[in-house]
Amino acid sequence: MASVAVLGAAGYAGAIAAALLHRHPELELSHVTARADAGRRLSDVHPRSRVPLRLEDYDADRHGEVDAALVAYPHGASAPVVAGLRERGVKVVDLSADFRLDDLGVYQEWYGEHGARTHFGTGVYGLPELHRDAIAQAGLVANPGCYPTAALLGLAPLARAGELADVVIDAKSGVSGAGRGATETTHFVSADENVVPYKVGAHRHTPEIEQELGRLGAEVRITFTPHLVPLAQGELVSAYVTPSRPIEWVELRALYADAYASEPWVEVVDAPPGVLEVRDTNFCRISVHADPRSGRVIVFAAIDNLWKGAASQAVQNLNLMLGLPESAGLNA
Amino acid sequence: MASVAVLGAAGYAGAIAAALLHRHPELELSHVTARADAGRRLSDVHPRSRVPLRLEDYDADRHGEVDAALVAYPHGASAPVVAGLRERGVKVVDLSADFRLDDLGVYQEWYGEHGARTHFGTGVYGLPELHRDAIAQAGLVANPGCYPTAALLGLAPLARAGELADVVIDAKSGVSGAGRGATETTHFVSADENVVPYKVGAHRHTPEIEQELGRLGAEVRITFTPHLVPLAQGELVSAYVTPSRPIEWVELRALYADAYASEPWVEVVDAPPGVLEVRDTNFCRISVHADPRSGRVIVFAAIDNLWKGAASQAVQNLNLMLGLPESAGLNA
Amino acid sequence: MASVAVLGAAGYAGAIAAALLHRHPELELSHVTARADAGRRLSDVHPRSRVPLRLEDYDADRHGEVDAALVAYPHGASAPVVAGLRERGVKVVDLSADFRLDDLGVYQEWYGEHGARTHFGTGVYGLPELHRDAIAQAGLVANPGCYPTAALLGLAPLARAGELADVVIDAKSGVSGAGRGATETTHFVSADENVVPYKVGAHRHTPEIEQELGRLGAEVRITFTPHLVPLAQGELVSAYVTPSRPIEWVELRALYADAYASEPWVEVVDAPPGVLEVRDTNFCRISVHADPRSGRVIVFAAIDNLWKGAASQAVQNLNLMLGLPESAGLNA
Amino acid sequence: MASVAVLGAAGYAGAIAAALLHRHPELELSHVTARADAGRRLSDVHPRSRVPLRLEDYDADRHGEVDAALVAYPHGASAPVVAGLRERGVKVVDLSADFRLDDLGVYQEWYGEHGARTHFGTGVYGLPELHRDAIAQAGLVANPGCYPTAALLGLAPLARAGELADVVIDAKSGVSGAGRGATETTHFVSADENVVPYKVGAHRHTPEIEQELGRLGAEVRITFTPHLVPLAQGELVSAYVTPSRPIEWVELRALYADAYASEPWVEVVDAPPGVLEVRDTNFCRISVHADPRSGRVIVFAAIDNLWKGAASQAVQNLNLMLGLPESAGLNA
Repeated sequence: MASVAVLGAAGYAGAIAAALLHRHPELELSHVTARADAGRRLSDVHPRSRVPLRLEDYDADRHGEVDAALVAYPHGASAPVVAGLRERGVKVVDLSADFRLDDLGVYQEWYGEHGARTHFGTGVYGLPELHRDAIAQAGLVANPGCYPTAALLGLAPLARAGELADVVIDAKSGVSGAGRGATETTHFVSADENVVPYKVGAHRHTPEIEQELGRLGAEVRITFTPHLVPLAQGELVSAYVTPSRPIEWVELRALYADAYASEPWVEVVDAPPGVLEVRDTNFCRISVHADPRSGRVIVFAAIDNLWKGAASQAVQNLNLMLGLPESAGLNA
Repeated sequence: MASVAVLGAAGYAGAIAAALLHRHPELELSHVTARADAGRRLSDVHPRSRVPLRLEDYDADRHGEVDAALVAYPHGASAPVVAGLRERGVKVVDLSADFRLDDLGVYQEWYGEHGARTHFGTGVYGLPELHRDAIAQAGLVANPGCYPTAALLGLAPLARAGELADVVIDAKSGVSGAGRGATETTHFVSADENVVPYKVGAHRHTPEIEQELGRLGAEVRITFTPHLVPLAQGELVSAYVTPSRPIEWVELRALYADAYASEPWVEVVDAPPGVLEVRDTNFCRISVHADPRSGRVIVFAAIDNLWKGAASQAVQNLNLMLGLPESAGLNA
Repeated sequence: MASVAVLGAAGYAGAIAAALLHRHPELELSHVTARADAGRRLSDVHPRSRVPLRLEDYDADRHGEVDAALVAYPHGASAPVVAGLRERGVKVVDLSADFRLDDLGVYQEWYGEHGARTHFGTGVYGLPELHRDAIAQAGLVANPGCYPTAALLGLAPLARAGELADVVIDAKSGVSGAGRGATETTHFVSADENVVPYKVGAHRHTPEIEQELGRLGAEVRITFTPHLVPLAQGELVSAYVTPSRPIEWVELRALYADAYASEPWVEVVDAPPGVLEVRDTNFCRISVHADPRSGRVIVFAAIDNLWKGAASQAVQNLNLMLGLPESAGLNA
Repeated sequence: MASVAVLGAAGYAGAIAAALLHRHPELELSHVTARADAGRRLSDVHPRSRVPLRLEDYDADRHGEVDAALVAYPHGASAPVVAGLRERGVKVVDLSADFRLDDLGVYQEWYGEHGARTHFGTGVYGLPELHRDAIAQAGLVANPGCYPTAALLGLAPLARAGELADVVIDAKSGVSGAGRGATETTHFVSADENVVPYKVGAHRHTPEIEQELGRLGAEVRITFTPHLVPLAQGELVSAYVTPSRPIEWVELRALYADAYASEPWVEVVDAPPGVLEVRDTNFCRISVHADPRSGRVIVFAAIDNLWKGAASQAVQNLNLMLGLPESAGLNA
């Protein structure tokens, strides 16, 4: 049974990944690490995880002996640690943005200097529904951002069919997306009963979405605006597509049904999905609509930002990399 | 001191309107009516109103003797009652959709038969920031829908300047927007921790927004999608505008600052507004942003759907109709 | 593999029970029934259940052929259906109050006439931590109410030790406890940002708690007050005990640690538990505190009202009745 | 018109006090101070306040020239500043705990060293309903804690009548009660969907409640437990009283009705009050119940912790101290 470490297990996504791996039928969670909370049991920091392992300070030697690692560090901090693990032959799923982009210039423009340039570009973009085969061969998988996960699953069928001429993406995320750090933004009194747009025209998931849409054949400049909504977990992408040609709903519905017919974690539904329908799961729920008045196509994609948008998708990727059943350990 | 009745005072908007009028320094709230709750004190049905008047069954004679009435009935039910009041010379602010549209065919397409066709088209559209003078002369004012209020205040400067070529409107509303009726949608367990799009491509506020944009010079077919978010009161409109020509932020900011320089209830701000900033007020907060990557203009407009989106705007209209200071009774 | 039906699967507790049984490794969920939603798939009514079975109208013959049934009907309606199933030899876990009380007079006082008097008193009270052996032998198990579950687990060690002289129970429950019915109480706008006591001195769980405390040796008249709090699932019991003699914390802690040392679903912790720590689980988390100033003992017990307070405890009981491992199908 | 400064106006209570004073018809808000946010407009830090004044660094000379000051500092930090203001003849309402207790030993036991011992004991306890005349004569008023406000208003009639033999107080507070500091406790993801007891048997409001009950004739050791509930503002005290003798509801109801017949800000109601009924107001809503089964008397008292529990009560006290109508500026 392969041994796995979760680095950065005290964050929201790391803790869920650790919980999934701890109960995984074919993997052994051998280490969990964290900086500020080192020494505490993960189950004391995150009771819901019910993982009794103690959080350790990261140690390149000790933690480099595992078969695989999930790294849930902030971007920038992740790259050098991932590079070290890779040099020891450890398979890595990196949850940061450090290995998602192909173009170093674009990375630098949005994130600043890269922490391990010799390894830049060595990761496979970890959206299984788009890159399953490459992931299965990869030593390093860059787990997608939460917004790109929902946006790309929602738009891929149109992009691949050459029907995506332009798109406005209006996204809504629960507060866990802002991380475990206690700030004015994440204070209950600030977020409760509120809806707030943020990082307008400037969110770092923008180039990631454009890169992957481009690979699918849609070279577009997107308009992407995230909003904070008063709930803990859940993310909805509302995408307003200008199609390349008029399309009717029947054709759209068939396009989406076909695209995801054999995908275990994508559900194409008729009614617009609410984020609660996918809470605490690896599912992405998608509906597609024609708006004959304006000619636009409207797509909704709902995920749990901490699950399919981070932790459970990382486990899905890990399963693929290790030759295990893709859904092992993901069926709640 | 003019006497005012609120018909339909047991609904959310009606109760707030009654509370505002009850404390209004220059008006006398003489009657409140309701069907199901008749006989109860309004303060028992809605404790926060602190209006001790008893809810009465509507009586055309008794309630036709007031100087003015606010009618907070559902569309369809409103028209005949409003017609009766008008025939007795009562000034009316109608909160339903029955007198908002100019085109009977459009009304019928979206709402069905009109309940008082001889009076159709006799109302003035009650957005004071657009139609102040006409409202002041009117006997019947059609109080705007909540979404049109925010959308039009957010888009009017661009529309009037001829810069609005196309627009996608993504709106988010608190649950009070769905009304006081207890349904699966308004059940706490359904709405809590959820975000759900609804009436995709089919919301009745669509023609109302298009009508008023058209009057401002922008003949567009909008894409409009509302979403239910887990909060009680508050509404955010996120508008994605394709401008007629490239515009920079400095010009946009000046356009908006000028447009609303002397408006007491519109606040143009730099950071995207959260709905909490206008909770329980008659304010609309607007920010405008350029997205140089896509060339789009992004506008956010936040209101309290029950206040500026309904009750307090109705009082603002009533003040204008009766020659009172426009903000009387609105400063909390 | 034994076949199980869930009757009343469209309610909150029924749907969760069905979901647990659908994924249960040693049981087969063969039927789900519902009145109003008959004909729909359970996964359409409750997407999170992900149970694709169609809800059926209850049919005494067809549904009487299963090996076991979980009945999630309202009290009163439950008794005759349970009686019918028992007469056909079906093992039953009943989630209503119909078979929880021993004394028919007490039942009648709190609930009115009983719907199947010849069967009254034939059920075993289904709190596994108190009555494990009897449950394993039972044909009919009366699943406890949510408040009694938390209150009794929290108080049993003191009651059994003869230390419980008097107790005030202040309980807080999420809105799902009020059921799926859409009412003014369960409307989002009523419950959001609110805390409301209800059924003061008159909640039907009162005699149930007293009965079981009495069996443990504590013949007390309790003061029990439930409060509605703005969350979907979760229940906290805060119990203020006047002990029979002064007790120090060290002794209390040992008493509780011993009582639950081998219980898989009870966690004794030091810090007061939050309900979020047990959300979506079968766990009950308990902390016990001495208040030297007043001499009182304070106990907190947190459960998920729909899980340990209803659905998952029903499955735990079913496992015991069928000779399966007690925790089968309960480890998320 | 008297000039007033609010020191510590960037906190939740300070900002509301400043907003009330800014709109007060008979007072002039001349200064607002804050440490970390100095230089910013209060309306930028707290948009809902709509107070355009800039926050200043505290300056003993400049701010000592006002007629009156509201000091919203943490306990300990407050005492020396209040002492300085008093020495300059400024009338002060202090929102901290520094001048609430009469017994220095008790203060030291619960709070540590006092910051201005020569002034200890010079404040009047600022619960107008209990100490109106003394407040009107005072130069320094100690504004009560939020929990004591609700608990004492709820218990005073029983205490004064000699009927309060013992009491358990179970209190629930919204997250604003934990202050504006961003911590793990106030993080949205921690507080949302949660209910958590805290400071069990150790909350600093305990001696304050006991002191004032003692003054009313009830020398009791209370059991007091606060809980954090997922809402922004609102506080409910549920008090379980063992009366000195059996009392029936009719007598209780008359006792409470009489006690508060002429109080403008106390509402005695029949149904248990929800905190939403008093949100954003200076009201305290109280219901009293007899529990014949246990012989206990149950009292509920609901306030807005930031209003009657802090800011608006401070203004009420200030009005009394300055000889203004007690409710000036408090009617929303």
